[in-house]
Amino acid sequence: MNRAINILGRKLRLGVIGGGVDSFIGTVHRGAALLHEQFEVTASVLSSNPERSLNDGKTLGIPRPYATAEDLFAGEKDHPEKIDLLAIMTPNNSHYELSLQALDCGMDIFCEKPLTMTLEESEDLAAKLAQTDRIYCVAYAYTGYAMVRQARAMVEAGDLGELRSVQCDYIQGHLAELGDNEADNWHMKPEVAGESLILGDIGTHCFHLASYITGENPQDLCADVTSIVPGRTAHDYCGVLLRYANGARGSFTVTQAIAGGIHGLKIRVSGSKGTVEWDQESPDELIHRTLNSPERRLVRGGKGLHEAAHRATHVAMGHPEGYKEAFANLYLDIADHMLARHQGQKPEPLALWYPDIQDGVDGMKFIKAALTSSQQQSAWQALG
Amino acid sequence: MNRAINILGRKLRLGVIGGGVDSFIGTVHRGAALLHEQFEVTASVLSSNPERSLNDGKTLGIPRPYATAEDLFAGEKDHPEKIDLLAIMTPNNSHYELSLQALDCGMDIFCEKPLTMTLEESEDLAAKLAQTDRIYCVAYAYTGYAMVRQARAMVEAGDLGELRSVQCDYIQGHLAELGDNEADNWHMKPEVAGESLILGDIGTHCFHLASYITGENPQDLCADVTSIVPGRTAHDYCGVLLRYANGARGSFTVTQAIAGGIHGLKIRVSGSKGTVEWDQESPDELIHRTLNSPERRLVRGGKGLHEAAHRATHVAMGHPEGYKEAFANLYLDIADHMLARHQGQKPEPLALWYPDIQDGVDGMKFIKAALTSSQQQSAWQALG
Amino acid sequence: MNRAINILGRKLRLGVIGGGVDSFIGTVHRGAALLHEQFEVTASVLSSNPERSLNDGKTLGIPRPYATAEDLFAGEKDHPEKIDLLAIMTPNNSHYELSLQALDCGMDIFCEKPLTMTLEESEDLAAKLAQTDRIYCVAYAYTGYAMVRQARAMVEAGDLGELRSVQCDYIQGHLAELGDNEADNWHMKPEVAGESLILGDIGTHCFHLASYITGENPQDLCADVTSIVPGRTAHDYCGVLLRYANGARGSFTVTQAIAGGIHGLKIRVSGSKGTVEWDQESPDELIHRTLNSPERRLVRGGKGLHEAAHRATHVAMGHPEGYKEAFANLYLDIADHMLARHQGQKPEPLALWYPDIQDGVDGMKFIKAALTSSQQQSAWQALG
Amino acid sequence: MNRAINILGRKLRLGVIGGGVDSFIGTVHRGAALLHEQFEVTASVLSSNPERSLNDGKTLGIPRPYATAEDLFAGEKDHPEKIDLLAIMTPNNSHYELSLQALDCGMDIFCEKPLTMTLEESEDLAAKLAQTDRIYCVAYAYTGYAMVRQARAMVEAGDLGELRSVQCDYIQGHLAELGDNEADNWHMKPEVAGESLILGDIGTHCFHLASYITGENPQDLCADVTSIVPGRTAHDYCGVLLRYANGARGSFTVTQAIAGGIHGLKIRVSGSKGTVEWDQESPDELIHRTLNSPERRLVRGGKGLHEAAHRATHVAMGHPEGYKEAFANLYLDIADHMLARHQGQKPEPLALWYPDIQDGVDGMKFIKAALTSSQQQSAWQALG
Repeated sequence: MNRAINILGRKLRLGVIGGGVDSFIGTVHRGAALLHEQFEVTASVLSSNPERSLNDGKTLGIPRPYATAEDLFAGEKDHPEKIDLLAIMTPNNSHYELSLQALDCGMDIFCEKPLTMTLEESEDLAAKLAQTDRIYCVAYAYTGYAMVRQARAMVEAGDLGELRSVQCDYIQGHLAELGDNEADNWHMKPEVAGESLILGDIGTHCFHLASYITGENPQDLCADVTSIVPGRTAHDYCGVLLRYANGARGSFTVTQAIAGGIHGLKIRVSGSKGTVEWDQESPDELIHRTLNSPERRLVRGGKGLHEAAHRATHVAMGHPEGYKEAFANLYLDIADHMLARHQGQKPEPLALWYPDIQDGVDGMKFIKAALTSSQQQSAWQALG
Repeated sequence: MNRAINILGRKLRLGVIGGGVDSFIGTVHRGAALLHEQFEVTASVLSSNPERSLNDGKTLGIPRPYATAEDLFAGEKDHPEKIDLLAIMTPNNSHYELSLQALDCGMDIFCEKPLTMTLEESEDLAAKLAQTDRIYCVAYAYTGYAMVRQARAMVEAGDLGELRSVQCDYIQGHLAELGDNEADNWHMKPEVAGESLILGDIGTHCFHLASYITGENPQDLCADVTSIVPGRTAHDYCGVLLRYANGARGSFTVTQAIAGGIHGLKIRVSGSKGTVEWDQESPDELIHRTLNSPERRLVRGGKGLHEAAHRATHVAMGHPEGYKEAFANLYLDIADHMLARHQGQKPEPLALWYPDIQDGVDGMKFIKAALTSSQQQSAWQALG
Repeated sequence: MNRAINILGRKLRLGVIGGGVDSFIGTVHRGAALLHEQFEVTASVLSSNPERSLNDGKTLGIPRPYATAEDLFAGEKDHPEKIDLLAIMTPNNSHYELSLQALDCGMDIFCEKPLTMTLEESEDLAAKLAQTDRIYCVAYAYTGYAMVRQARAMVEAGDLGELRSVQCDYIQGHLAELGDNEADNWHMKPEVAGESLILGDIGTHCFHLASYITGENPQDLCADVTSIVPGRTAHDYCGVLLRYANGARGSFTVTQAIAGGIHGLKIRVSGSKGTVEWDQESPDELIHRTLNSPERRLVRGGKGLHEAAHRATHVAMGHPEGYKEAFANLYLDIADHMLARHQGQKPEPLALWYPDIQDGVDGMKFIKAALTSSQQQSAWQALG
Repeated sequence: MNRAINILGRKLRLGVIGGGVDSFIGTVHRGAALLHEQFEVTASVLSSNPERSLNDGKTLGIPRPYATAEDLFAGEKDHPEKIDLLAIMTPNNSHYELSLQALDCGMDIFCEKPLTMTLEESEDLAAKLAQTDRIYCVAYAYTGYAMVRQARAMVEAGDLGELRSVQCDYIQGHLAELGDNEADNWHMKPEVAGESLILGDIGTHCFHLASYITGENPQDLCADVTSIVPGRTAHDYCGVLLRYANGARGSFTVTQAIAGGIHGLKIRVSGSKGTVEWDQESPDELIHRTLNSPERRLVRGGKGLHEAAHRATHVAMGHPEGYKEAFANLYLDIADHMLARHQGQKPEPLALWYPDIQDGVDGMKFIKAALTSSQQQSAWQALG
């Protein structure tokens, strides 16, 4: 069944801002949107250089390529076949403005993280969104993996009991050496990427993933955010301790400066009855430890899974699904939500398991609290 | 860069025969073709029921849905915007006829394996193909994985030295129990699927993968092909011993009847200087053992890889790529070959690393030799 | 509790023939015997050089060092504190004679594998042993691992259902290159080590391990035994296909010539209800796959194990036990059997899970059948 | 070669206090001491119950069993064949007194950790020891693993470059549920085991292991030490952030309350040139990541290792060594040191790689600093 065709008689129309023709994030978003035949890429702004943006859109065969974001909003706002969803993958300091304009044009939005530059912007954006019926997804893409959803479903079902501890590590290696021109990389510039490279780039993923699976934010944190590579000004390391409302504890160790690091995103959530462990480098499995029986290895497509995992599964057990498939699951969720709204129905609950604006706001709260703690000799900070 | 748009001014047009709307293989082919923005799905026959075929094509938003294969060939043969490539994923006993018709219509072809029902048909098809400039890819899809290509590139570059041994296991579990109505499953019917379920369904993958990586077929084999589940008539197990021309040896252990088996496709190729090991359940890594230094774990997107691996890599190191991405690499290769031909140029050599008609023929030789050996008390058979 | 002290008022006395002071196998046997405080090393012949043998015995602080095996038998036969157990770890062509002499002296025996040079010798030895109440253990030491015993116990308990298939691989690397003076290595000399290096050295381990876990020998086999390293005369590779009485199938792939190979002993036993997999390089775990529930990882000392595994466990879960501990379990079994016999009692059944003379005889049957098959173009041979 | 016999003409004499006949730690110490044929167990106090202590010593065949520690010191002090080494494995609150008495008797000492109840006691003991030539080893036994020594040797050799970060996790499960009578367990009683269960029991292992490998102590730490299981008073969790003098950072996550946890001791040490990762559950391997080449898996007994690893290796590559072998390496080091001292020589430098009194003192500093930080809202504390 193709729900978009069935309900609308056409595929959903995606516009993209940012993400060049061959860029990592551009090919991921476009490929993920196409994968399940619900979306077509209808409009684009593919470069901050207007001429290149137009050319690149043509090169991809996109029906309505635009030179600039302004052109896109102007061209689409009243277009009879206006794009349904706008994917924003520009540098972080433009997310807020572009989101506001997209809302103004009545578009649904899929925005890269971190949501904005400041918590205030995020809260303002959330407030404005709340006055519309628009859909807003923040690209915490690891939540699209079937086995991450299985972990969350296990917590929800009580399989793990009461929360006792959380550990999330994100250990990458591409910044292990000081680069020649780090200042030229927009990810390194606080005025473009936000105040803390490590927190905005990957620390926020740990925070979101932990909250996504456990179903709750920690209450307080203490953090040490710094650079461990001599000569670097941008943050490349953070250590975080967490306290939850019920007394559970947690920790994050996050860095991009491990020599030889690969991807290194792992999470362990432990409760009074059981523990789950997930590693993005082996995303199709979830290790489940229990009090009184041997460790189980749950595999995507296999036995003993919750519906939430099956729903995010598209090839048979043992045939791997990867990062683009995780991303594609977010696009599917958004599509399901859009189509239900079109029909005046509530989306099925599992379709709402994409990360939404509140997750984006919470991510900014985390960044703010971690920075504040670190600036105050790692004093505990409430997450508010 | 989008090569199809650049060269043709349009995306390539794919037609599909077989593979229902939500079927495993159908969603894999269509999604894989769409993933890199080179193809659009233009025409379809999605069911052996003509009415359903038409409806399902409409449901997927396919521009030219057909009721039957006959209709597709009739409709496309002289269409001004004829499909460029036909993907055939029907039951095995139709591959030969559909391929001949597609050739007759001047289409390139991407056909599921096994190529045909008999070696004779395959050889005939290959002979007819040789009189055209059509492209023919056989869906030995595991060859689309970047690290399988790395393994082949290492052999070609002499990294492993002279071939000494090969082992390929394919250990699945979905036939561990006798099904209620196995006779109703077309995979189980010799007249539809071919004489030997296990050989045609997965044994041929082992054979192809070993030849793909080593660059040569074994010279002789001895085999025991049977069913290990009481009451089953279709073959569900084969053990094979192999001899290569230079004295190297090999073995295959292939079954779908391992209780709890997942996917279980693993291969080890060993030479005088080194050994590589690959497991489809962890496809982004290749273990490399050497005579005089520690074992190395090569990872897709990482250090120390050949160009062939990079060419098949589309997301950064540590972000997994899965089965659909492997399939998508075959579609990319085909596209590159098609576009080079269009320009009157030779394709770049690595674009020809998709499995071609000769691989399909060799697969049928393997099936025939293994069956003959098994029928003759596992006497050694030349592969011819 | 120390059973030997409790029952005899003293530790058991071990004599060793072969295994130099710092040799691999010598330190393994002596350390394993000492580990659980049941044995002391009382007598020794540590070298084929009589003077060195005496000196080395003194160097180890062994109370009764001998120059030669003859001296040992002469000195011990009527010694009031005669050794209880003789461990034989000399080259293979002496096992038969030394065993006969030890029997003649009324000693229990722990002999390295392969048992003798020929099947006839083994059968003769077994017949002579049967006329005594002596204990004879053959050093198929992998059977001492707790998780191998768990696997066997699962088969016995019916946890895996009816046998369907077995696969055992033994993939080492130390003979990947042709050595300078291979002819000087006794393991390579047929007149010292037996007709086939690969079969006697490690192939026989696969055979025994498969039979030990499944509880039965295969009925027939077909084999290809050869050398894959050019210029080598000793066998370094064998591929074997197996058939069991009930129609189950099996395979062995065994070689010492994989470039970069480490140890590589793995076995998978699969039945109608479940499958177990064990890898000697991770000996404390046993993977258990089942028809209808997720894969379980059983760990030594953990939940869900049979008594046979607990009995062979001596440190807590998660603290690894290795090769010497496996060996030590055989010594413990032998001690338990010896002490029960001393008390005129039957040993507890699990104490008899050490590999005995029949296992040694069966190993010789395997070697003979595999060689015969290989010499007859891999024709199937009954194991008889 | 047996060094003790060669140099002394006899094995070294070990006395043990604590560790019952079948207790975990008792069998580990005694077996480890026996394994390499350098020690014999000569004297014992095996229970706090005098009668049982005597009986148990007899049951183990120990030549000089004693009823109490007092008896042992009295009996051994002037014994012509006095024990050389005393292994202390009693509850923590007796380590200080027993150590002082052993020193007074001129014995070398191998004491369980934590060293004493307070930092002050430890510093006093170290000061008294410094006035003797006695050898003092603290049982941080994980340092006996060959691949831990490889890691340290790599740091020393500069293979990893300048220290950048350290992470050590110790994640066990045996306290995941509140026990019925936790108050009766001496490990849970502050007056017997020390103020903080988690810090003294396993946190101190993380601290030592990190310092052992990196060659330096962190400068400051901040910690959150608590119980995460409702109703428990003893600490079962700690999270620790670390700062090193050069700006490197670190973290520990340590708990015994993970449902289904097994052993879970892992460490990663990362420098400017490379990273090593070690997991006690797979102790024979060390993962080595580097800036510009693929990940390497170093294995005990394999290629590319430093002498320190070879020295701690006793069976061939691929045959596992476990926890007792690690412990046995500490006994070997002590023996080497004792024998060199006997000869009036300096021990070879690698023989001094056992954990000594300073490591014990540093462990107490860690416990004190972590507790203080935790009591002060995780304020940073110097380790000073």
